[in-house]
Amino acid sequence: MITAQDHEWMARALQLAGHGRYTTMPNPRVGCVLVKNGQQVGEGFHRRAGGPHAEIHALEAAGEQARGATAYVTLEPCSHHGRTGPCCEALINAGVARVVVAMEDPNPVVAGNGSRKLRDAGIEVEVGCLEADARALNVGFITRMLEGRPRVRLKQAMSLDGRTAMASGESQWITGPQARRDVQRLRAESCAILTGVDSIIFDNSRLTVRAEQLGLEDAGTIAERQPLRVVVDSQLRMPLAAACLNEPGRTLVVAVEGVESLRRAQLEAAGADVLELPAGADGRVDLAVLVGWLAQHEQCNELLVETGATLAGALIDAELVDELRLYVAPTLLGSEARPLLALAGIQRMEQQRRLEIVDIRALGQDWRILARPLS
Amino acid sequence: MITAQDHEWMARALQLAGHGRYTTMPNPRVGCVLVKNGQQVGEGFHRRAGGPHAEIHALEAAGEQARGATAYVTLEPCSHHGRTGPCCEALINAGVARVVVAMEDPNPVVAGNGSRKLRDAGIEVEVGCLEADARALNVGFITRMLEGRPRVRLKQAMSLDGRTAMASGESQWITGPQARRDVQRLRAESCAILTGVDSIIFDNSRLTVRAEQLGLEDAGTIAERQPLRVVVDSQLRMPLAAACLNEPGRTLVVAVEGVESLRRAQLEAAGADVLELPAGADGRVDLAVLVGWLAQHEQCNELLVETGATLAGALIDAELVDELRLYVAPTLLGSEARPLLALAGIQRMEQQRRLEIVDIRALGQDWRILARPLS
Repeated sequence: MITAQDHEWMARALQLAGHGRYTTMPNPRVGCVLVKNGQQVGEGFHRRAGGPHAEIHALEAAGEQARGATAYVTLEPCSHHGRTGPCCEALINAGVARVVVAMEDPNPVVAGNGSRKLRDAGIEVEVGCLEADARALNVGFITRMLEGRPRVRLKQAMSLDGRTAMASGESQWITGPQARRDVQRLRAESCAILTGVDSIIFDNSRLTVRAEQLGLEDAGTIAERQPLRVVVDSQLRMPLAAACLNEPGRTLVVAVEGVESLRRAQLEAAGADVLELPAGADGRVDLAVLVGWLAQHEQCNELLVETGATLAGALIDAELVDELRLYVAPTLLGSEARPLLALAGIQRMEQQRRLEIVDIRALGQDWRILARPLS
Repeated sequence: MITAQDHEWMARALQLAGHGRYTTMPNPRVGCVLVKNGQQVGEGFHRRAGGPHAEIHALEAAGEQARGATAYVTLEPCSHHGRTGPCCEALINAGVARVVVAMEDPNPVVAGNGSRKLRDAGIEVEVGCLEADARALNVGFITRMLEGRPRVRLKQAMSLDGRTAMASGESQWITGPQARRDVQRLRAESCAILTGVDSIIFDNSRLTVRAEQLGLEDAGTIAERQPLRVVVDSQLRMPLAAACLNEPGRTLVVAVEGVESLRRAQLEAAGADVLELPAGADGRVDLAVLVGWLAQHEQCNELLVETGATLAGALIDAELVDELRLYVAPTLLGSEARPLLALAGIQRMEQQRRLEIVDIRALGQDWRILARPLS
């Protein structure tokens, strides 16, 4: 039975797990609290892949106090030998009496095996304490494990009349500093950022996490990992002098199979990784294939899309977008300005793409809207 | 001195004043409470032009109890003989000892004279209790009195990507029933509704208040007064069979001076009032002249604009819009769909029209955004 006390301790474990928001990828964010006689005797969280899991940190902190304690873990303890030893064994060896788990590990090599191993050792196991919160924290990891694709977020900054930039492309400073800081944090928690080559050609986007704009205590450490930059560039029009090629982190340029090898070699010499993928029906990179590839080959949990109306619309049309994150500035740009989304073939109202708005909040003078496409 | 008790009674008087929201025009909404020894002895509000003022209702309810009482009035009592006698005399004759007023009457024939007359009769007068709330309640009346123009609200229903209808014009049911009810109430509290002739030609808009859609107890009474329908129609393209010409209430078709007299006569025979106004620089009806005319000749306090991107944009460009009221539906219509606003000559970001967002709230699945242009 899961009690109100269990909920309180699990809330603490989830809070700890959140400390890994910007650093654990491709691993999930996990927190652990050890409690004995109503007192916390140890806590920990997973900080980065290759480092100790949350349970190990907590057990180390607790020492002998772990014997007979209850462990609160936001994700089912692992049963397999990965880069670090299995946490189940550590919990069993430490003599923990009870383990409360927020959610089963969606990773098919764990998926219930951890709980089984603990129960086999005589430990009482409860699964499902604050499960919804635990799922929200690792929605990208879960999507990759269960569906073989990343969670895709489309971010756009727009005016109140749904425009993103002048017809000329000029777009600086639609939104204010608080919205821009929010975007920086969004980049920092993403595994990769997807854009179209036109954003590179016309805006020379860098798509980097800038430590000084994060407004976080450990910003320097966070910005050491730059999300993978992915540029959809079917015909390799990427400029060799693109600013993003000189930024820390990798830039992956994705073309259709059979592009000119000289151009490919030039881009690689300029610092890009180049990937050739099969073309879709329209002769361009097949976006569904690309998104799946990023999960399978780059272990991409959370993919952020920052691009113009055409690629953004194509992703929505292909039903690849899980969440729209719109930053709305209190301004009007008029009907000559650039549209938010080019969606194909909407002629009648019945073809509209309905959404569910899940959150609206103020960020300085701007507003952030989170919405999910309804299928 | 204005006390906390005064604020409480004035709040009640403002609540009463609000009962006249849909019926007092062109008069302001006014409420009155009479209090003696900490007990309410009478209350009233102004219901409709030509009927008794709030003070008279309250004095009648109080009878002899009014002697020595404090009167709370949301607007300075009138000192002139209008359709009903001056309220100052009535308060003096009833022996009221103190009058607390929320705001001075902006009507230049009153403007402080009411308070002076009361003070001359030995009554203690306090002005400015909950003044901001009182001003908000009668913002249209105040604007007309002080500036000779109505308060102009631009209402539009749009998708999350800033689109109002399909390219074909199809637009039914973007927003849900709660947003549509809100629009009905907005119409009911407006003196007039302004639209462009294209909305009549393509959508056959009726622009009426429908009692059954108001969701108000006294909906039948409210819908007896239909706001004046004003159609901007520079060249008299208004169809003789337009549905709005057969609805209760008046339709005013506004053309430029010198339109064809036969067409004018036909429209008048079909039920329209026709007004000819000087053309602006673009050869169309001068919108600033029209808006002023509606205040001066139709006593229009609150003007609601329900129209397409062109006229809406022209009103914003002419700086005639005081408030944007956007109903945002959780849907995407794509960049082929109709834009929200055609604004002239925005080429650079520095020409953007900045707004202040003053309110955002959910209406069912839709969101309502109130914004004011920053000058």
